[in-house]
Amino acid sequence: MNPNPITPTIPYDQDGKFHGFLRLPHSRNESAWGAVMIPITVVRNGDGPTALFTGANHGDEYEGPIALQALAHELEPEQIRGRVIIVPYMNYPAFRAAARVSPIDMVNLNRAFPGAPDGTATHKIANYFNDTLVPMADIVLDYHSGGKTLDFLPFACAHYLDSVSQQEACVAAVQAFNAPYTLMLREIDNVGMYDTAVEGQGKVFVTTELGGGGSATARSARIARRGALNVLIHAGILEGERDQERTVMLDMPDEDCYHFAVSEGLVEPLVDLGEPVEKGAVIARVWSADRTGLQPLCYYAQRSGILAARHFPGLIQTGDCLGVIATAMED
Amino acid sequence: MNPNPITPTIPYDQDGKFHGFLRLPHSRNESAWGAVMIPITVVRNGDGPTALFTGANHGDEYEGPIALQALAHELEPEQIRGRVIIVPYMNYPAFRAAARVSPIDMVNLNRAFPGAPDGTATHKIANYFNDTLVPMADIVLDYHSGGKTLDFLPFACAHYLDSVSQQEACVAAVQAFNAPYTLMLREIDNVGMYDTAVEGQGKVFVTTELGGGGSATARSARIARRGALNVLIHAGILEGERDQERTVMLDMPDEDCYHFAVSEGLVEPLVDLGEPVEKGAVIARVWSADRTGLQPLCYYAQRSGILAARHFPGLIQTGDCLGVIATAMED
Amino acid sequence: MNPNPITPTIPYDQDGKFHGFLRLPHSRNESAWGAVMIPITVVRNGDGPTALFTGANHGDEYEGPIALQALAHELEPEQIRGRVIIVPYMNYPAFRAAARVSPIDMVNLNRAFPGAPDGTATHKIANYFNDTLVPMADIVLDYHSGGKTLDFLPFACAHYLDSVSQQEACVAAVQAFNAPYTLMLREIDNVGMYDTAVEGQGKVFVTTELGGGGSATARSARIARRGALNVLIHAGILEGERDQERTVMLDMPDEDCYHFAVSEGLVEPLVDLGEPVEKGAVIARVWSADRTGLQPLCYYAQRSGILAARHFPGLIQTGDCLGVIATAMED
Amino acid sequence: MNPNPITPTIPYDQDGKFHGFLRLPHSRNESAWGAVMIPITVVRNGDGPTALFTGANHGDEYEGPIALQALAHELEPEQIRGRVIIVPYMNYPAFRAAARVSPIDMVNLNRAFPGAPDGTATHKIANYFNDTLVPMADIVLDYHSGGKTLDFLPFACAHYLDSVSQQEACVAAVQAFNAPYTLMLREIDNVGMYDTAVEGQGKVFVTTELGGGGSATARSARIARRGALNVLIHAGILEGERDQERTVMLDMPDEDCYHFAVSEGLVEPLVDLGEPVEKGAVIARVWSADRTGLQPLCYYAQRSGILAARHFPGLIQTGDCLGVIATAMED
Amino acid sequence: MNPNPITPTIPYDQDGKFHGFLRLPHSRNESAWGAVMIPITVVRNGDGPTALFTGANHGDEYEGPIALQALAHELEPEQIRGRVIIVPYMNYPAFRAAARVSPIDMVNLNRAFPGAPDGTATHKIANYFNDTLVPMADIVLDYHSGGKTLDFLPFACAHYLDSVSQQEACVAAVQAFNAPYTLMLREIDNVGMYDTAVEGQGKVFVTTELGGGGSATARSARIARRGALNVLIHAGILEGERDQERTVMLDMPDEDCYHFAVSEGLVEPLVDLGEPVEKGAVIARVWSADRTGLQPLCYYAQRSGILAARHFPGLIQTGDCLGVIATAMED
Amino acid sequence: MNPNPITPTIPYDQDGKFHGFLRLPHSRNESAWGAVMIPITVVRNGDGPTALFTGANHGDEYEGPIALQALAHELEPEQIRGRVIIVPYMNYPAFRAAARVSPIDMVNLNRAFPGAPDGTATHKIANYFNDTLVPMADIVLDYHSGGKTLDFLPFACAHYLDSVSQQEACVAAVQAFNAPYTLMLREIDNVGMYDTAVEGQGKVFVTTELGGGGSATARSARIARRGALNVLIHAGILEGERDQERTVMLDMPDEDCYHFAVSEGLVEPLVDLGEPVEKGAVIARVWSADRTGLQPLCYYAQRSGILAARHFPGLIQTGDCLGVIATAMED
Repeated sequence: MNPNPITPTIPYDQDGKFHGFLRLPHSRNESAWGAVMIPITVVRNGDGPTALFTGANHGDEYEGPIALQALAHELEPEQIRGRVIIVPYMNYPAFRAAARVSPIDMVNLNRAFPGAPDGTATHKIANYFNDTLVPMADIVLDYHSGGKTLDFLPFACAHYLDSVSQQEACVAAVQAFNAPYTLMLREIDNVGMYDTAVEGQGKVFVTTELGGGGSATARSARIARRGALNVLIHAGILEGERDQERTVMLDMPDEDCYHFAVSEGLVEPLVDLGEPVEKGAVIARVWSADRTGLQPLCYYAQRSGILAARHFPGLIQTGDCLGVIATAMED
Repeated sequence: MNPNPITPTIPYDQDGKFHGFLRLPHSRNESAWGAVMIPITVVRNGDGPTALFTGANHGDEYEGPIALQALAHELEPEQIRGRVIIVPYMNYPAFRAAARVSPIDMVNLNRAFPGAPDGTATHKIANYFNDTLVPMADIVLDYHSGGKTLDFLPFACAHYLDSVSQQEACVAAVQAFNAPYTLMLREIDNVGMYDTAVEGQGKVFVTTELGGGGSATARSARIARRGALNVLIHAGILEGERDQERTVMLDMPDEDCYHFAVSEGLVEPLVDLGEPVEKGAVIARVWSADRTGLQPLCYYAQRSGILAARHFPGLIQTGDCLGVIATAMED
Repeated sequence: MNPNPITPTIPYDQDGKFHGFLRLPHSRNESAWGAVMIPITVVRNGDGPTALFTGANHGDEYEGPIALQALAHELEPEQIRGRVIIVPYMNYPAFRAAARVSPIDMVNLNRAFPGAPDGTATHKIANYFNDTLVPMADIVLDYHSGGKTLDFLPFACAHYLDSVSQQEACVAAVQAFNAPYTLMLREIDNVGMYDTAVEGQGKVFVTTELGGGGSATARSARIARRGALNVLIHAGILEGERDQERTVMLDMPDEDCYHFAVSEGLVEPLVDLGEPVEKGAVIARVWSADRTGLQPLCYYAQRSGILAARHFPGLIQTGDCLGVIATAMED
Repeated sequence: MNPNPITPTIPYDQDGKFHGFLRLPHSRNESAWGAVMIPITVVRNGDGPTALFTGANHGDEYEGPIALQALAHELEPEQIRGRVIIVPYMNYPAFRAAARVSPIDMVNLNRAFPGAPDGTATHKIANYFNDTLVPMADIVLDYHSGGKTLDFLPFACAHYLDSVSQQEACVAAVQAFNAPYTLMLREIDNVGMYDTAVEGQGKVFVTTELGGGGSATARSARIARRGALNVLIHAGILEGERDQERTVMLDMPDEDCYHFAVSEGLVEPLVDLGEPVEKGAVIARVWSADRTGLQPLCYYAQRSGILAARHFPGLIQTGDCLGVIATAMED
Repeated sequence: MNPNPITPTIPYDQDGKFHGFLRLPHSRNESAWGAVMIPITVVRNGDGPTALFTGANHGDEYEGPIALQALAHELEPEQIRGRVIIVPYMNYPAFRAAARVSPIDMVNLNRAFPGAPDGTATHKIANYFNDTLVPMADIVLDYHSGGKTLDFLPFACAHYLDSVSQQEACVAAVQAFNAPYTLMLREIDNVGMYDTAVEGQGKVFVTTELGGGGSATARSARIARRGALNVLIHAGILEGERDQERTVMLDMPDEDCYHFAVSEGLVEPLVDLGEPVEKGAVIARVWSADRTGLQPLCYYAQRSGILAARHFPGLIQTGDCLGVIATAMED
Repeated sequence: MNPNPITPTIPYDQDGKFHGFLRLPHSRNESAWGAVMIPITVVRNGDGPTALFTGANHGDEYEGPIALQALAHELEPEQIRGRVIIVPYMNYPAFRAAARVSPIDMVNLNRAFPGAPDGTATHKIANYFNDTLVPMADIVLDYHSGGKTLDFLPFACAHYLDSVSQQEACVAAVQAFNAPYTLMLREIDNVGMYDTAVEGQGKVFVTTELGGGGSATARSARIARRGALNVLIHAGILEGERDQERTVMLDMPDEDCYHFAVSEGLVEPLVDLGEPVEKGAVIARVWSADRTGLQPLCYYAQRSGILAARHFPGLIQTGDCLGVIATAMED
């Protein structure tokens, strides 16, 4: 097989702090010998564990990019032991396009793992992480939010894994991240996910959903920044004490949590994120986008709980996720 | 001058409730003899005042459309005295495109007044409202929100007018609307606005900014719905008692309220809507979208107050409005 | 006022046959000093009347272009007396784009008259015809068909005019054209039409609708070719005898003839062009494009007659013309 | 291999009539957790044969969608024995785009078989039919027409197959469909076709070409509707007597039937569908789309027969199919 | 009339050097309260003449932007007497799009003068220059090149004017600019040009064509930089001695200089810029872009001279300017 | 495996001169049964060697298409011994789009080898050359230039190969081509290149870079034409004497030759093609495209030599190739 064409412009194994790029050659109409240049920062100070932190796996999610730009700017080698690899804009073409998927190949990076060195641009990025960066890491933190079309309660998340010890390590790291909400999730369809690729290599993995709508707030950005430092301290890379607050435990036990639209139209939400809802209550009405005078279509809660995620845009299409109801308990 | 080509499919002067369309002939590649069909509802019961309520003047603002679809569905002639004309999707092509301006001519309806009967599609819509619907009305309510690129504290708004009595009537109606925040505004550049056209005809006018981001929440939709009923009661059209809560008075006295971006990048907000801010405090940092390791550009509050509006998307362009600081006092 | 920038590359007043262009300078991204080159042919033989024949006023209508390319190729000066000016692709940019309106400015040429020398490209074309070519003509024939979105029974058409003598001259020319169907039409909204501009200059004017769907058939092309020769003979320009067949007289007396869609969906037509239909009969059903199991929306004939025009594409939008019922009588 | 991600929202094995969707998860910029929802109806009444009927394999062909929407609406369980699975819009994204191929991946569904569960959206649809629906069926009817760029004489079609008994069963079903024309076809390049996939599973298969141009007529819709009922009766699923008329047998014995364009330009057809043509006759002229005065390029019939298919748009490109001449004999 | 909405962020009348923007409010889908921010630099030192220097009037011409960015960076107030106003990217939206005309309204800025304060974005820019900046200037230098579709011999240019003294002043300034070639031009169609607007206000005006193809070379950039300094010295604003070399005088006396394409295809140039050509010689062949084996179309020199401009892209369209032949004489 | 669907419309093994097409069936929205028609000419005269000459491997490079259209037009069978296969527009869809890569699948043909018969359109073309045309050839000449985004000194090129004798044969052919510059190149990343595919089949291979910018000059076209004849004479196919001039030998020994942009902006080149440059000298400045008053970013020569290639467009993106410095010695 051909080698992955991505090359870093900075060293991974040298002490100090290095700002550079992952250089992915990309010949195209606009640049015959051009390249996609994915920003990367490596901070290293002697031996120790390696943390790999990524944002913009989906290009329209902003808490990760903010926290990691700040971390790359503020973290100094003398503060740490070991190594921190920071890629704030993992799917850089998608990030520049403010889009979930790459404008180059319309591929969802988080469904492209393990990737391929001779695939399209997104598959090459997936493959470089899978084969080069993840193997270097002990702990991996991948930031997500809802993007332009979903909005979430801010939570960090671990997956149920076959290995009890790996799962415990992940849970501990997720609790260290200390988002306002914490979720244990059993991914039903995890084919092609970065999560799956990282966990499959036996690494400690933390993921999040910290907001959405294609925007970040002061609050969600603070959660993201604080979580990064907490995880570094937890991993023994950064000195100091974690800044911990109470977190609410969430559970999404079955398919009934998910509510999908079966028609298009104008959404009138009746429940906001974090609000409690009883099974059978109307959570949203969808009005005709064409005319007045028609009955709205009502969507009923399939279970009791709190609203943990919601459709963001004002209009909705058939098949879109309208809302997710989770059960919550104080930790 | 040629007459405006728009025709209603329902009567304006007949008692009862009528759902129909404003029919705007629009010959185009996709339909040689086609038309833009703008939904409209007229509810009438004998003599009395006329209210004209409009949403989606900008097509990506959803509180107005929701409140007016609900009102058109729920309001019955026997509940009222006089007439209510409801146009939930005023710039219907923009609303269907989920865009601020019309995809047909890229014209901003709220800068197209008084319009022209032989202009482009948006100018024809403006002209029909200006020449036909507004003259029929005693009180006009036009819903706005921030759309996909701005987010606002929910407020209703009246303008400073030359006529003291007209201004007082407008203020009374705005207070009747009873949004959580209430604003008196002196439009500096009001050329082409619907507001200006309506006020210029001596009508009572209420406008709002109820949220933004291209989404509506359960809360903002409730504010919009409640305000419509309150205004109808205030106008003597609907029986009943207004549902009034406390409102906070806002003021945006000068240009220093407005903060504009002077570079592009990734926004890290440091203040959320409604939070207090001191003059000179950093309200946002903008990070490079290209690389790591650069200083962020800091934006400082030009005055003390509370954050009343903010840039919504995660990325920002030079010239975008980053935030608006208002002074607030409890009413 | 500035002069119209269009210049012909061939002479109008010289005996012989000349193929060339109307040259419209059009500076654009793709060509800094470029031009729109509209093909034109002039055939002249001494003094005599002038005929101006045009096709592709709408760029997706093909019978005119075919008939006029053939005429330009086959007509020789020695066959005629006077002059024939042939412009097969009047709105050339639209014709090349296979679109109703010009891709340059999205303007419908047939609504742009009298045009303007300093307007957009389509207004310049309209203005050149209005100010230069039409004044040179005694008789004007403008070919139309339904384009990509409508389909018509093949008819030639004259308008009711204020001048009895002009109307009689037009009717005589339309009968000379001798399409299978012949229509007298009272344009209700004729603002900006070429027809109106030509008739306003007192010229004899013939227009047609010869088919549609963005296609021409062998039959419709033959009707178009035959009509051109018949009109030239009728005008005294071409020697010979007209090739005349029976024609059916059509009338579209009022608004009830026109049936418009009030919802979008999949069209199931129940009546074909030329078939008789009784008032109240279902002429089409529209099925949901989203799901199965819903009632189709039925459209009922608003009057008795024959189906003279129909919506062409398989899907329909709200506001589209679904069908036109005309009354017919043998001539 | 990963399982196909498509799931039905209705049961296949329960008596009654069910309207629902095939749900294909499709994460994209417009909907992070969205899905393609392909409408499906299942009608079942006890044991018996299963018929699988599909339309819009190509999204711009409308006779199948019309007939199957009507069938899904009108067919009741008590009328049948066995099961009818109806998918009116097989390539739903293409159907909504009024396009031959899917706008998601630009893949032609009828060249994507047997598909792949981890391919692009169209490959997933192909794979679901190949692995799940076709194995459930005894008889399969797939409606086609010419789409926006071709127009056909209305025919039903069976293929020459290696298995004599299978071929005879197919021919019997095609004759039961009873289109005005009936064709036996030897596909030369059948790679990736649904036809090939169905026949390869030993099923009885009927396909059609019933018109074209991206439109349906009252006549072609009636042929499609009648054929569906005829095939259900033939299959022993529906009670009743078939509605049979005379059909004309067509044959396309060799490559000479097909006429391709070798230049671009404006098409002047000289023969219409169903008309006889002698070898060597001119069937079309192609005129320059750039200028007047050039010789048209003439296309000559490569064999005698009747015109069975023709290029539809008014303009033609090099390589397009200009026309197909078949030999015809009364059955 | 409404005032022009453009405002500068820097002072025009204060001593020192100021970098800022011309702020043009531009509400659009991407930014509700956004603005076009046109970079501007003002350098001032006491009383004295004002020079107004502009680049990117057409957005794909680069010598002006380079020279003016360098000048804005390097020129210091203490070096000058009077004032220099520098706008390197006059049509900023076009410049960012690397396009001749503005992507906002597709308007050619150099045909939009005198503009309008309530026109589209480009008309507003034109109007601000016409009404605000040009009146402040004594001498105006506007840089042009061929852009992406033309390539020129590097020349500076003055126009024949009605006022002898104004023309002499312009010629002197053009000679001071000292490009390798110098041209006197009689604009035949000067409607809407910046040149015309500036000259109409009685100002000294210098324009150039310094290269093309959408690129700048080291040589063409040097010519542009040197010309700026020479003109400032000539105007008495900058101290020092002009850097003068020999220049070749060019003349384009009549329409025969211009050669236009009358067909599309692949261009084979036979003469390069600056090379001599005899009347009747073949200057280019155009080959079919569709097929091999056809005769190329030959273009013959309509006069003797040197090639002063040429079509740049490898393919050519009907109506494009193929080449311009000028007569040259050593100064 | 399925056979490649491409078929030639002309014979390869018949004496004479044949102009035709490679016919690649391409069903798409615009043409249901359409095809990509790639022009090809075969000239043959008895036994002898076969030369395969190709242009427009990248669709925006014009010297090859010009030289090969001329050769196809001018070369007569009686002038040669053996066979010449000429494909001027190898990636025909890209050539018609004036783009580097195919608009059908966005694939770079020169990275698609060996291709696949069931891949996308570009992979099918690659596969047809790889499996059908290259095996027929003894010597292969593939023309390249810089396209729209790069500009090169005109050179012909051979690769370092494992087989000494094959390399010597290639070098001899490259010298026969006799471009002004001659290069020996060690491709570091040659995966998917046509070069690699041809050389892997043991053929004599010549490639070139003859200019760029998406334009051809009279000079570069002459070099291309002369080279074709020289190679045919060298191969013993064409009679006659080669037209040889001095050539300069170029070497690009290591990675330091290549200079890449690490920021976006406006390029000010300081060195032109062919000019000498000292290590450490500034070769270009990049100015901000957003504002005035910022320091330009300077790029320094990483080695001494002459500038052999340069970025062409006026604006540059991060990752683009800014320039290539080669070492040169007179041959």
